[in-house]
Formats: sequence, C-alpha cells, structure tokens
Amino acid sequence: MSHHLGVGQGQRPDGSHIRILLSVPAAEREAFFPPPTLHALAALGEVTECEPAALHDADRFRRALDGVHVLVTAWGFPRLDADRLRLAPDLRFVMHAASSIQWLVNDDFWATGLPVSQAGAAMAPAVAELSLGFTLSLLRRTHRHDHALRSGHNWATAAGTGRAREISGARIGVVGASRTGRHYIRMARALGAEVRVHDPYVPPGDPLAASTVGLRELMETSDVVAVHAPATPETHGMIGADEIAAMRDGTRFVNTARPSIVDMDALFDVVASGRIDAALDVFDHEPLPVDDRWRGLPNVLLTPHLAGATSDSRQRAGQIVVDEIRRHLAGEPLEHALTREDLARMG
Amino acid sequence: MSHHLGVGQGQRPDGSHIRILLSVPAAEREAFFPPPTLHALAALGEVTECEPAALHDADRFRRALDGVHVLVTAWGFPRLDADRLRLAPDLRFVMHAASSIQWLVNDDFWATGLPVSQAGAAMAPAVAELSLGFTLSLLRRTHRHDHALRSGHNWATAAGTGRAREISGARIGVVGASRTGRHYIRMARALGAEVRVHDPYVPPGDPLAASTVGLRELMETSDVVAVHAPATPETHGMIGADEIAAMRDGTRFVNTARPSIVDMDALFDVVASGRIDAALDVFDHEPLPVDDRWRGLPNVLLTPHLAGATSDSRQRAGQIVVDEIRRHLAGEPLEHALTREDLARMG
Repeated sequence: MSHHLGVGQGQRPDGSHIRILLSVPAAEREAFFPPPTLHALAALGEVTECEPAALHDADRFRRALDGVHVLVTAWGFPRLDADRLRLAPDLRFVMHAASSIQWLVNDDFWATGLPVSQAGAAMAPAVAELSLGFTLSLLRRTHRHDHALRSGHNWATAAGTGRAREISGARIGVVGASRTGRHYIRMARALGAEVRVHDPYVPPGDPLAASTVGLRELMETSDVVAVHAPATPETHGMIGADEIAAMRDGTRFVNTARPSIVDMDALFDVVASGRIDAALDVFDHEPLPVDDRWRGLPNVLLTPHLAGATSDSRQRAGQIVVDEIRRHLAGEPLEHALTREDLARMG
Repeated sequence: MSHHLGVGQGQRPDGSHIRILLSVPAAEREAFFPPPTLHALAALGEVTECEPAALHDADRFRRALDGVHVLVTAWGFPRLDADRLRLAPDLRFVMHAASSIQWLVNDDFWATGLPVSQAGAAMAPAVAELSLGFTLSLLRRTHRHDHALRSGHNWATAAGTGRAREISGARIGVVGASRTGRHYIRMARALGAEVRVHDPYVPPGDPLAASTVGLRELMETSDVVAVHAPATPETHGMIGADEIAAMRDGTRFVNTARPSIVDMDALFDVVASGRIDAALDVFDHEPLPVDDRWRGLPNVLLTPHLAGATSDSRQRAGQIVVDEIRRHLAGEPLEHALTREDLARMG
C-alpha cells in the first residue's frame, strides 16, 4: 500500500532522518510533483508515498504514519482528529498541497499546536484566469453563438443573440477582494475594464479602497458580476434573491468561487428567463447530475469545478510544498502557514 | 425608398449645401449611429438615408445619389463601377463605415481619384478581444468541459479532458502583425503570455521586430497559434497542410481573421482527430450550413463571423465616419484614407 520512492533521502542538520509521507491521489501526483520537484522533495528527507484513500483504514494509517515527521496531503486524506493524531506521534508538520483544508483539520488538530501550511496561493492565478475567460465569453456571447451553431440553428439565428460587448470600458463588479479577486482585478484592468469591488474587509490604506462599493449598488450597476469571495458563514447566501433581482437585463454573472455565496435557485430562475447569462464552475450539488437543470440552458457556460486545476497551478503547488518543507526543516518562518483564525476568514 | 432625416443640415464654408447619403442596413444603423452620432453627422450636411439593398436598381440609385457629395456605406451597397459612378456625378467622398471594401471599389473607382476612407480601425479591438477570449477558452479547455456537460456526459468524464493551461507563461504565436494582431499581442503580453509573431513586413525598427520568427518554427513551437493576417493573394493558403501538421499535439488554433489564409480541410482533419483544438469565427463557406462538418466536433468553439461586431466597435465606427467627413469638408488630411496599394496589402 505504501512504498518508498527510492529517489534519495535527507537528514536533519543534527544527522537524524526526516521522514516525509506524500499522500496525494495517484491521478494528480505527477501533476504536483514532476520529476524535478520530486527530486527536490527527496533531497529534504526520506519520501514515502501512499494513496490517501487507503489510509481511511486506521491500521494502515498507523503503519503509514509511523515515524513520519512531515505529511503532504491534497484530497481524500482522512480527517486529522484526535484518534488519527494519536496514530501519528512523530508528526511535526502538515503541508497541504491544495487549497481548502477545513475537512482535514478540526479543533483536535489545532489543540496540538502543530504547524500547517497550504499551497492555495498556487491556485489563485488559475482561478482568476478562468474567471477572466468566462467574463470575455459572456461579454461577447460566445457561449450563445457556439451553443446555437452546435444545436442546429441556422447561421443568422446563431448570430442574432444580442449585441456583444467589449471588456475595455465594461463595468465589472467583483464580490470579494480575495487573493484570486485581486489577481482578476489586475488582469481586467489591464484589458481596460472599469472595476469596482465589494468587500467589507478592504482596509482604508489598500489601493482597492477607492474602488469599493456596496453590494446592492454593485449588482445594480455592473455589466459583469464576478464572485471571488470565500465560503464562510458570513458570505453564506450573501448574493440572495434580492441581489440577483437587482441586476439589470443583460448583466453577466460569473462564479468560480463557491456556490454557497449565491442563492442558486434564484440565480437559476433569472438565467432560465434569459434576462441574465451566467458562467459557472461551482454548483450546489456536485458532481452535477447528468440531468441537472443547469445543463440544458443555452445562455450558460459550464465547467466541472476545476478553476484551480491547471498544469501550471499544480506545478506551482508542488514547488510551494517543497519550499515550505525546506523552511520548516531549516527553522525559517513559513510563508503559507495557516491559523484557525485564518481559516474562519478564508473559508 | 429614401427619406430625409430632418435632423438638421449643414453648409460648406462658401454657403453651398452638403448632401450626405447614409446607406447602412437598417438592422445596423442605430448601432453605428445612435442619436448623438447621427446628430453630429447632421451638423455636417443634409443627411438622406436609404437602404443599400434598394440601390441595386439603377434608377433608384440615380435618384438617391442625385446631388450627393458624401456617401456613407457599410454592407450591401452596389459596387461603384463606371456605370454607377456616372449616376453619381456630384460624389466627392466615399466613407465606408465597415472594414472590407474590395467589393465596393474597383479600377473604375480608383480611376476617378475620389478619396475613400474606411472605419476598419474601429473593429480591431473587437476582433482582438474575441481572439483573446478564444485563446483563454482553448487553453483552459472550457469549450470541451462545457460541451461535455451539455451533451449528457457525467461530471468525471467532463472533467477528464486533459490538463488546462494558463495564459501566463503560454507561448503564443501570432500570424500577422496587423492592427488587430498588435492589439491582441499587447493584451496577451499584459496577461503574461510569451508572444512571437510571423510577419515578413515588420520593419527592422519596429518594437515587434525582436519577436519575429519563421512561420514553420512558429507553428512547431507555439501553445496557441492565433491568425491575424489579412486575406491577400500572398497570404492565400499560407497556413497549409504542412504548417498544420507541424503543430504539436495539444496546440490550440484560433482564427478570427479570414478563412482563405488556412487550408480548412487540413485543419478540419487534424481537429477531428482530437490532436488540435480550434476556435473559429470564419469559415470557407459562410453562412455555415446547418449540417456543416465543423458543428459536430466537441473540441471546437464556433462563432458566426462576428468578431468585429460589438456595440462598442459599431459606435466607434460611427464616430470615425463623422470625424472623417468633418476632416474632408474642412480640407484637413484624412486619418483613415485608403489607396489601391493599401488594399492590396491589407486585404
């Protein structure tokens, strides 16, 4: 079930061996850790690899974690609750190669005081780029043209789906000045968009502070609304039926963040009416059933929750993993450490 | 058939009336000439309006052009050959509100020495933006994901269509350093792409000169190939079967320019094989028949030849029309005048 990679092994400065357990799903392992990155990881310690799905069995978990100082996770790993943590007595550092981590760590984990770090920064440019691509498609009605041409409509009908808009000069409203939101804003502005942002936590001195606006005004006056807020109790249902109804006819709605932020039923109704077009990477029921209501609408653009999943973002994440583990072992400050408080804010 | 707009009328400096015939298809007239632009046009002369389709009848043409000094065209106007020009003895200036103009003017026209100007500059940003949107979609495989989710595939199948790429760091090869090509290049570089260009006419001192590369090398080494060359005898079939075969597996191909530049049969074969994805706004047979071969492929993104047709570009074109007519009447140099030689180069 677990096996040594045999690509080298490192030692602590004091000569003791460092054991690193790499538990990333096999389908993604090469994407995160191409040979040069794996080699760099193996230079930091003795790397053992194990499929996370196999570790839900407690006995296998105990054996795999035996003597492990550094654990590298991504998806599918069992939650690190008190029972599990007792089976990993040598654990000193958890390095999460992906983004969301709430499912992995709970109060039991935080009580240990173990440091945990996360490579979510690697995903922000990928998510922001998908959101930008969605924005351009919706502004140009590319999705409507393409769907019409693919579903047997004649050329003139396919062309006659309303006038396209350019991003240069378009008013874009961003919900959430997150890392991803800020990356998206930089790109949209570089293309000439007029961007405003709703986020109650933008500090006064922030360069974005001059561009903040209330959510209601943002919904009412934007050509495109792009969601980049985290899923937290505070943002749950933040874009409700009233906010959705406030959008003018022809507004474009983009969500590459989380579905919980949006009243998806209200959004569906307004999109199904044809009044609003939408591009969505996230849904309230994932995986989206084959007969899901969203799949049949001509004026939506759909992707199956992979905004963060580019080859580039996976490679960046692998590199962050190596760099953070090196920092941890060298006693340097971590650059991507998370606290329980960070999690409450970031979602 | 023709009617006076009754929105005012201007005079030459010497007091004589200027007559302007506005002959733009009714479906597009408001897009080019919203009220403020029409008002500005009417301040320059007595504006008469006539549907271009009606003017293929010679007698109607004669009556509509009677006393007309300035003719404004877009699509559907009869060719200005010697027979037609004889029926427009007062014509002093032709202002074309759209881009391609070869169908309108021939040797007979050039022999008259009449000035002609064109608002194609208005379209370049629109075409470049569609090409950029296509680029982002193909890099992210958004089209594949969307098509799979719309055609009954389950979520995992829809997600499993190969790894997405980001534009930041992508190698983009641009065929043609046209006005549109240059706009596209600026935007792609602003998003972090590594852009090279093939164009034998980039002069040595041009900022793009350092980025030029041979066509074969461009095809072989680009992640995305974007066509922005004009349709001229020289570019006809320039991207032939050999150039298409030279693209590596997974290369993305974007054409928002003209189909004649590309061997569309060879492109179809390589796209149908799944080796290359494509996004196309132009086709060798337009309108594309309902049962056309391109419409069924899951790995193409299709739009019905409207790269230049945004509300923004139409408004810019209307403004260029007004500004050029004002320059013509004031005896100032035109900013968008075309010569027969320009046409041979621009397509």
